[in-house]
Parts: sequence; C-alpha cells; structure tokens
Amino acid sequence: NPKRAVYDRATVHAILDAAMICHLAYQIDGQPYCTPTIHWREGEWLYWHGSSASRALRAQANGAQGKGLRVCLTVTHLDGIVLARSAFNHSCNFRSAMIFGTAELVTDPAEKQAALLAITDRLIPGRNAELREMAAQEIKATSVMRMQIEAASAKVRAVNVGDDAEDGSHPVWAGVIPVLTTLGTPEPSPILPATTALPAHLAPFATGRKLDEALLETQATYEATRP
Amino acid sequence: NPKRAVYDRATVHAILDAAMICHLAYQIDGQPYCTPTIHWREGEWLYWHGSSASRALRAQANGAQGKGLRVCLTVTHLDGIVLARSAFNHSCNFRSAMIFGTAELVTDPAEKQAALLAITDRLIPGRNAELREMAAQEIKATSVMRMQIEAASAKVRAVNVGDDAEDGSHPVWAGVIPVLTTLGTPEPSPILPATTALPAHLAPFATGRKLDEALLETQATYEATRP
Repeated sequence: NPKRAVYDRATVHAILDAAMICHLAYQIDGQPYCTPTIHWREGEWLYWHGSSASRALRAQANGAQGKGLRVCLTVTHLDGIVLARSAFNHSCNFRSAMIFGTAELVTDPAEKQAALLAITDRLIPGRNAELREMAAQEIKATSVMRMQIEAASAKVRAVNVGDDAEDGSHPVWAGVIPVLTTLGTPEPSPILPATTALPAHLAPFATGRKLDEALLETQATYEATRP
Repeated sequence: NPKRAVYDRATVHAILDAAMICHLAYQIDGQPYCTPTIHWREGEWLYWHGSSASRALRAQANGAQGKGLRVCLTVTHLDGIVLARSAFNHSCNFRSAMIFGTAELVTDPAEKQAALLAITDRLIPGRNAELREMAAQEIKATSVMRMQIEAASAKVRAVNVGDDAEDGSHPVWAGVIPVLTTLGTPEPSPILPATTALPAHLAPFATGRKLDEALLETQATYEATRP
C-alpha cells in the first residue's frame, strides 16, 4: 500500500532503534533464509553478531565472489489488530523498516572489540562497566557483521479502521485492539546472591514499561555518551 | 546454537499459530527481501495474502521459471532479555520457527474464496458471519499465496541465565526480564454507533491477555469447527 510508505531517515532510525531483534533475509545456494537476530545501529551502519562457527555468518561475509552477500534487514512492530465491518478492510497497525545493503565481517580487532562493547552499551548503557571483562576466547568465538544502510523503506499504519463509508451502519463492532510489548517483573538468576539489588542501569527497563520506549531511551543515552 | 534446535511438528505449529505476523524471505533479481506479513496455517500449508497489484507477490508466484519462488517464512516471539555477569552470556529468550518451501498463487476461485474466509475464521472465529459479505471486486483485488511446509526448524530458549560457574559471585544483578506481548483496551471506530457492544467472538482478545495465548485459542477453535 503506497500510502503507507515513508522514507525519512528519522522514521527509519526510530523503527530500528525501538526493537531488540530484526529479521535478516539472505540467500545461499538458491535458498533464501529469514533469520531472527539482535541488531544495533551506529549512525548509518547496522550490526549483528553470532558464533564464529556459524555457517550462515560465514556465507554472509564471503558471498558468492568474496564480496559479501546482499541482505535485507527488517524490523517490525505489531501495534494493533484493526477490525473492520468487512473482511477486506481488516488490517494491522504496525511500524516496519526494510533496510537493503551488503553484509561484511568486522575483521579489525580493535573495531571488533569496540562493536562487542557497543552492543551492551547501546542496549543497556552503564552495564558493561559492571560486568566481568570479556575474555579473548569469547571475542574469538564471536563474529560481528555489519552493513551500511544503502536503501531503506519504512511503512507505518497507526490510525483507526478504514471502513467503507457505506459500511458505517453495518451492525458489528469495529475498531482497533492495541497490541503492547512490555517488560515483566525481573526474574533473578537462581545462582544470584539474594542481596544483589537491581542496578540503576536497568531503570529504563522498569516493569510494565513498553519495550520500544525503553530501547529508544537507551539508544538516545548511548548516542549522547559514546566515545 | 545447536542445543536450541528442535524440530517436532507440534512445537513448530505452536510457534507459527501463536503469532499474527511472520517475516518472509525471498530473492528477486539478486536482491533478497524480508517482508512482514500476516500468515495463517491449514495443516502443513501456510498462507499469506496481499494486493493483486503487488510486484512482490507476482514475483513469488512466477519465480524464475514460472515455478514459484523458494521462500523462507519465519515467526519469532521475543520472550525475555537475559542478563548475565559477562557480556558473552547475555542472550534473549525466544521461540522461533523457520519454514522452507516454494510459494504458489491460489488460482482456483473456490479455493481462493475459502482461503479469504479462512483468514478471519482462523484469527477470529465467528466474526465472518457478522461481517458485510466480501464483494467480487475485493476478491479480485486480493492475491492469496501459499506454501507447503517442506522443511522446518524451531529454536526455543526459555530458561534463566547461563552464567559461567566461575562468574557466580561477580557482583552485578543477573536474570531475565520477561517481554510480554499483550492486548490493550479496544478503541472503537470513530464512525461506530455508540451502542455497538463488543461481540462474543472478541472474547479471546480480552484486555491484558497475552496475544500468543489468544491466537493459540482461536487456532484450536478454528481447527475444531472448520468445514
């Protein structure tokens, strides 16, 4: 639906930043794959990571001619179920962004280490400083991938139902049932000392809060404080 | 992570049925696409739909040699943020299913009309009977696609944090912050007569309920009552 396509950079970034996971499409040997993965954004670059042993990540990095695979990274937020008086006008409220680019492996050791710190700094600013340090073996066991945003397309539907005017008197309930993705009550690790308090850096993830709002806040904090 | 791969059919179906939207990967002219879309399941077949004018749907139906494109349809539920004592052991709780197959257009008029009724019958059993009937022009304006489940892979992570034993005394909070996707308070259409009550067929979508539970219930109702 062309009415729903929007392309401004701020809208695209906000859709990406409000989510913890994306879906990544890529094709290997004639077979498309659609893989859910955690993503994070640095300016016009998108990052994801995985096991160094991952066949999919190696294929993304090497591509057909060693150039990196073409990929499409999509983030979607389902925001509501739109119930109309006709089957045809049923819909969903949603925000989605499709990003097109070419995958590459982050090979420079300093860049890779910075990227692995960035994933936590971006999602939960302040947490890295309190963690046990990364071990060399952990860095070795992880591959970091990235892509520059070459082209992007966003679609947003955020209005009530679009019934045909002549259906306005048809006697069935119509409207939107919102869909909310929120944070639950933290469940401590079974091996956590009972006196360990929730740290200040988890304040953005307060119980009951919307996940997208928490992630937009932590992205803003990250952008204001990153090196 | 091979430990997380499960393949039994009931697990795969439950992950698919608990979601309203999936992401579909397919490649056209060397460019992969990752498109969010509503899906529904009939046994070992998955369905989706869109505008008859959609270039993407035409490409999926026609493929390279008129045989239908290879596609990968993935559903992912994000269930929690897993916070460890080391960056490396951070994770997400999730349920995901990747389905591989070949797209085809539903061309038989009776099958197409049945599929367009099935989408509402499956998501909200009982609603079709109260809607204004589908118009011929609406059916013409819609394409219905499907794929048989040729291969499927499910991954589930649903446990607390997996800290290394030697990190057990590192003094930072660790555990899981659950992520919940729930239904909000219905917002009536602005052109709905004020006396129109919420119908019984929306009872599964009660305010505060988890969306996945509502959709598993309606799939079960559909399977028990479909023609």
